[in-house]
Amino acid sequence: MLLVAPKVAYPTASALDKAALELERALGISKATRDANACAAYASDESEAIGRAPDILVIAASRDDVVKTLAIAESCGVPVTPRAGGTGRTGGAVPVAGGIVLATHALTQVKEIDRENLLAVVEPGVVTGQLHELVEKEGLFYPPDPNSLASCMIGGNLAENAGGPRAFKYGVTREYVLGVEACLMGGRVIRCGKRTVKGVTGYDVTALFVGSEGTLGVFTEATLRLVPKPRAIATVLALFDETRRAASAVSALIAAGMVPRCLEMMDHATLDAIRSQGVAIDPRARAMLLIEADGDPTAVDDSLQKIGDSLSSHEGLVDLVAAQDASQRARLWEARRMLSRATRKIAKYKLSEDVVVPRSRIVDLLERVDVIGQKENVQHLTYGHAGDGNLHVNFLWNDDEERARVDRAIEALMRATVDLGGTLSGEHGIGIAKIPYLHFEQSEALIDLQRDLKRVFDPKELLNPGKIFPARGHSAC
Amino acid sequence: MLLVAPKVAYPTASALDKAALELERALGISKATRDANACAAYASDESEAIGRAPDILVIAASRDDVVKTLAIAESCGVPVTPRAGGTGRTGGAVPVAGGIVLATHALTQVKEIDRENLLAVVEPGVVTGQLHELVEKEGLFYPPDPNSLASCMIGGNLAENAGGPRAFKYGVTREYVLGVEACLMGGRVIRCGKRTVKGVTGYDVTALFVGSEGTLGVFTEATLRLVPKPRAIATVLALFDETRRAASAVSALIAAGMVPRCLEMMDHATLDAIRSQGVAIDPRARAMLLIEADGDPTAVDDSLQKIGDSLSSHEGLVDLVAAQDASQRARLWEARRMLSRATRKIAKYKLSEDVVVPRSRIVDLLERVDVIGQKENVQHLTYGHAGDGNLHVNFLWNDDEERARVDRAIEALMRATVDLGGTLSGEHGIGIAKIPYLHFEQSEALIDLQRDLKRVFDPKELLNPGKIFPARGHSAC
Repeated sequence: MLLVAPKVAYPTASALDKAALELERALGISKATRDANACAAYASDESEAIGRAPDILVIAASRDDVVKTLAIAESCGVPVTPRAGGTGRTGGAVPVAGGIVLATHALTQVKEIDRENLLAVVEPGVVTGQLHELVEKEGLFYPPDPNSLASCMIGGNLAENAGGPRAFKYGVTREYVLGVEACLMGGRVIRCGKRTVKGVTGYDVTALFVGSEGTLGVFTEATLRLVPKPRAIATVLALFDETRRAASAVSALIAAGMVPRCLEMMDHATLDAIRSQGVAIDPRARAMLLIEADGDPTAVDDSLQKIGDSLSSHEGLVDLVAAQDASQRARLWEARRMLSRATRKIAKYKLSEDVVVPRSRIVDLLERVDVIGQKENVQHLTYGHAGDGNLHVNFLWNDDEERARVDRAIEALMRATVDLGGTLSGEHGIGIAKIPYLHFEQSEALIDLQRDLKRVFDPKELLNPGKIFPARGHSAC
Repeated sequence: MLLVAPKVAYPTASALDKAALELERALGISKATRDANACAAYASDESEAIGRAPDILVIAASRDDVVKTLAIAESCGVPVTPRAGGTGRTGGAVPVAGGIVLATHALTQVKEIDRENLLAVVEPGVVTGQLHELVEKEGLFYPPDPNSLASCMIGGNLAENAGGPRAFKYGVTREYVLGVEACLMGGRVIRCGKRTVKGVTGYDVTALFVGSEGTLGVFTEATLRLVPKPRAIATVLALFDETRRAASAVSALIAAGMVPRCLEMMDHATLDAIRSQGVAIDPRARAMLLIEADGDPTAVDDSLQKIGDSLSSHEGLVDLVAAQDASQRARLWEARRMLSRATRKIAKYKLSEDVVVPRSRIVDLLERVDVIGQKENVQHLTYGHAGDGNLHVNFLWNDDEERARVDRAIEALMRATVDLGGTLSGEHGIGIAKIPYLHFEQSEALIDLQRDLKRVFDPKELLNPGKIFPARGHSAC
């Protein structure tokens, strides 16, 4: 994890002056400012990444503002960091070269909700949770549900290809993006994708934009696929005496062909963190599963029965509770929801990774994390989307001097993940934070190919510089 | 539709001689040949596209053969057309510049079927239907089911992002490709993607390869996502007195949140074509729906009941038959399965398009097709995946002199499709056949961007030239 900015070219003072002047003229001072306080508020996101405060802040009020900003920035040679909700966990919205932060959070229009064709057309500043509410009123459903859904925005969700617990059944953001409008450096506007579920006309440029972490273009519109809102939901909470047995119960459910919408797991250290906040959890429990099924009422009843039967017959089960109404369900989710808060209280600092391993290797990963934690003497807890093999390994510490050990632990975690056939990131992206580990997973040939793709969109490398890829000639920073 | 090859640069005789010599040396004459008869067999696919027979045929027996071929071809400046099953419908595997056809049908290894992690690792020459059988024996399921599944191959399915009837519930090939190994011109090998369901490390290069119609790289391996095999299947056949009413019954099912795996529709002309082959269909019927649900037995029973109720209450229903065992189901699918044969018997030539419109516009499209057919006096019939809005509009003719009218009808169909918010191709790709219409749907900026992406993979534009994009400077050929 880098706490300092990677090497990038800073804009010159004269380039900044020129860009600022042109932006003020083109957009007006209400939308483009050099005010230091205003700019400072856009220097960080919800990761630990430390960047360099932007010199100019643009808050776009229209696509046209985005186009003008990208045209002026390119002509002046000033880097641009796009930003929507700023809730990213790997520094994707953190400017590392100063320059311009181009904020799209004021583009909040829901242009269309098409019930018949199951789609919505929205701007990048729409808050994900608000989109959920809006479409659910129409009997529709937008599945991606990142933990930050109360404040994260569609633009950032697309940029990072966000996931969430429901991804086990429904897949991640990518599966719900039919098309986008994206503005490129220089001001080109690209509309790609479709309004239909199927479509194979040309390359899948839409898929290339999704997950590109704001390095290829700035989203100004997204056409999102919706599904019918599930009519029933049921939640099951299962406590186990050992994490290994909880993980094996997950494998058994999946092997039996069950597809609940969420399959969350919390390990013993996570349960202890929750207990420390005054939540009563059976003292015999050393692991928790939270399983949620949705669909038609009959199908959900049937799933609930089968999940219950499968768990009950599994070794190590301590307790099993099911909930079908909303308030019972909320109680079962309480422990999961308070997790972020609970971990923040037991240590001053935390880094939450989001590695993914093939499902069958979850137990192996947990064992390796224990070994790593012991070796580096770093406190840790693990929870996450066990159904997907996507685990949030949290390393916790209190003193700055512990930091070097934490860094070694993270590096060892990344190596273990790749060694087990996994991937560095399931939903947070690479951003700044994971650049040093990219070459663990990807060959130099693949990294070079991606750099070349980046230059097609942004030949001067001014859009969100210092993200995803290590500096040329350095396989790791 | 082009019946002649688009303008591309043919290789020189000396370049061909050099390439042939080097290929024979590197691979041996059993794998690389200039035999005219052998080459002629690789001049066409299952489209009407007419290309130029390759000068050299390479039948690769390993990844290494593919790498060597692409390295030699680039160094000699000879174009390469990759090919797997050769069942494409838009000419993707048809060489238009002669040169080398690089066949991967002999790479038939199924390297791995991982039950626990629900994935398979296969070579490009594996026949899709054989993969179905193999994984179903293990209780798993590979959903994409293009009509040609008995002979089409995974390599071509990935290249064209193939669909099939089951795409309504399960999505198309793209949704099942976790990662690929692809060889680029010059011989670079790129492995991208993952073995996990989630993963957001870097750009989605895998998605860029899928559907790129063999213009970016040649697949030598694919890691495919599998799902648990559904335990039960039920099929419903519904006859309607009017296509418009059948289409509205489809909309009603979808609006009610039902997600059968297939939702196929056949119009009156299609039913007549089937009747002409001696299949008895209620004479009152002017449209047919074929609906198939799968899942757990209880869920399927429930779906069957609901689908039946919804259809029964719909105006215009003539007859309704349900089938749950395999032989009953096969009888209901008989009409759909014999369609290709039936249409070939009623006319000498046919062109089957695969346009997609938003579901709510299906009736509008059918009406426009009638108007177009009448205006150009061209016989036509329409069937296809109504659930996805993906319709196979077939134009039929007997005399070469009718061809100009057919071409005008196809152009009008493409314009109508885009006008209704649709896309030119749902599963066949652009290939050669649809190049003239690409600019109806995509902006010059988007087409140029894709050309630039192509050059990242293939700077000399030697891999599958003359496909997807019109020649530079011509928005239409």
